[in-house]
Amino acid sequence: MKLLRYGPVGQEKPGLLDTDGNIRDLSDKVADISGAVLSDAGLATIRDLDVDALPLVEGSPRIGACVGQVGKFICIGLNYADHAAESGMELPEEPVIFFKATSAITGPDDTVEIPRNSVKTDWEVELGVVIGKEAKYVSEADALDHVAGYCVVNDLSERDFQLHRSGQWVKGKSADTFGPIGPWLVTRDEITDPQNLPMYLEVNGHRYQDGSTKTMHFDVATVISHLSQFMSLQPGDVISTGTPPGVGLGQTPEVYLKPGDVMELGIEGLGVQRQKVEASA
Amino acid sequence: MKLLRYGPVGQEKPGLLDTDGNIRDLSDKVADISGAVLSDAGLATIRDLDVDALPLVEGSPRIGACVGQVGKFICIGLNYADHAAESGMELPEEPVIFFKATSAITGPDDTVEIPRNSVKTDWEVELGVVIGKEAKYVSEADALDHVAGYCVVNDLSERDFQLHRSGQWVKGKSADTFGPIGPWLVTRDEITDPQNLPMYLEVNGHRYQDGSTKTMHFDVATVISHLSQFMSLQPGDVISTGTPPGVGLGQTPEVYLKPGDVMELGIEGLGVQRQKVEASA
Repeated sequence: MKLLRYGPVGQEKPGLLDTDGNIRDLSDKVADISGAVLSDAGLATIRDLDVDALPLVEGSPRIGACVGQVGKFICIGLNYADHAAESGMELPEEPVIFFKATSAITGPDDTVEIPRNSVKTDWEVELGVVIGKEAKYVSEADALDHVAGYCVVNDLSERDFQLHRSGQWVKGKSADTFGPIGPWLVTRDEITDPQNLPMYLEVNGHRYQDGSTKTMHFDVATVISHLSQFMSLQPGDVISTGTPPGVGLGQTPEVYLKPGDVMELGIEGLGVQRQKVEASA
Repeated sequence: MKLLRYGPVGQEKPGLLDTDGNIRDLSDKVADISGAVLSDAGLATIRDLDVDALPLVEGSPRIGACVGQVGKFICIGLNYADHAAESGMELPEEPVIFFKATSAITGPDDTVEIPRNSVKTDWEVELGVVIGKEAKYVSEADALDHVAGYCVVNDLSERDFQLHRSGQWVKGKSADTFGPIGPWLVTRDEITDPQNLPMYLEVNGHRYQDGSTKTMHFDVATVISHLSQFMSLQPGDVISTGTPPGVGLGQTPEVYLKPGDVMELGIEGLGVQRQKVEASA
């Protein structure tokens, strides 16, 4: 099942993508695609609906972030060995955790803003994991039971802010529009193996990232179990699990985003994002 | 004006503290003490109410965190010179930013849990700043216009998780109950000078922290302006502005919390918190 949110910024309505690729409106069934409906029971209720009887959404509305009211936007750093190497950093012994501001979240095709004074705005295609059931001290064996589904995340990063502005990466990860999420939340029953998903990111048609979740260092189950030792996870939290090689920081010479650039990124089965880049007002 | 939230966890109602120290119920006036009512206009509406006509709350209900639906829980690290020194760290050139999980937020007198496998759970009394108006690229001169009010925050920290578990402080800052906030949100008109507030923290009656916001390195206006260069701030966001000397990590030998300990902490004009400590289940 592919769940989504559509409509103007701040007024998104819940919907689902039918098998013909049309959006069906869920407004009469659920208030939002958010933590409150992401439990196994909540998703089962949506799954039991007669899709053909749901209102068909006409036209091509804007697609919003696929999850609303996200409580925590958690990221895993340096989780692909080759990406750690290209960043000039050691592969960590345990998952590196950092947060992005939830105010950075945007729709998958919204314009990405380069913050004022930025010189190194960079891209990162990542597998997003959406939590469906509270997780606190969960084992790796049980971890995936806490997942509602998966989505594409672009973990935009300002490398100078992240690495050279007195510490803690959040500073370079949190600008408005630095967290496109979606287009869809694909429920976990549709993803046979989250550790075998090809993923890519292109800028202006040039493919910079071309990887697979196969080479993830700490897999999704490990990440969830590990996180849950340090904080509880709630339904609607989003975990972005790290990026494969090919970011701008890893190029020789380094390449960063500039106004007018267009990013396209996708993960197999989870859809495609497309963002135009402009300078922040 | 002292705004608060009272009642059982997850069912808090909005209230205000009258001049006799009684709680008056605001349920019929506002849905919650949260971003939606923290603008100057929203606060003015509450200020214009006839306090004596508001229902008096009987008994001694639990006090919840003084802000609900917090979007971002942002902290400033090493913001008092003496605390940086006792932590063995350099005073930063610019504010160090990190986040705490919003799921760590609890009431001012709720029990604090020591996480499983913790050996270094530590305290930090801090001045909390609650945002009332969106802030993006604001100047220092305008920064305080974006403040709804102030409150006491205990920025609980697990030092081993924070510093020795593969990086990024959030790992030691985000456990459940690691963010008591309150008892009250004191509106900014009542705080003549946020940079001259005595503050203290005691454990089992021993005063470990005895400082003042006077010795803050980056003041509140600087912090807000700086943050707003890297992310936008929304009404209801809480910024915890750093701690003065006297944390457990700074003692010789180091002192950490253990089950049965009782913390008491306060800031002049902002009230007192009192937390019992127990081991997480």
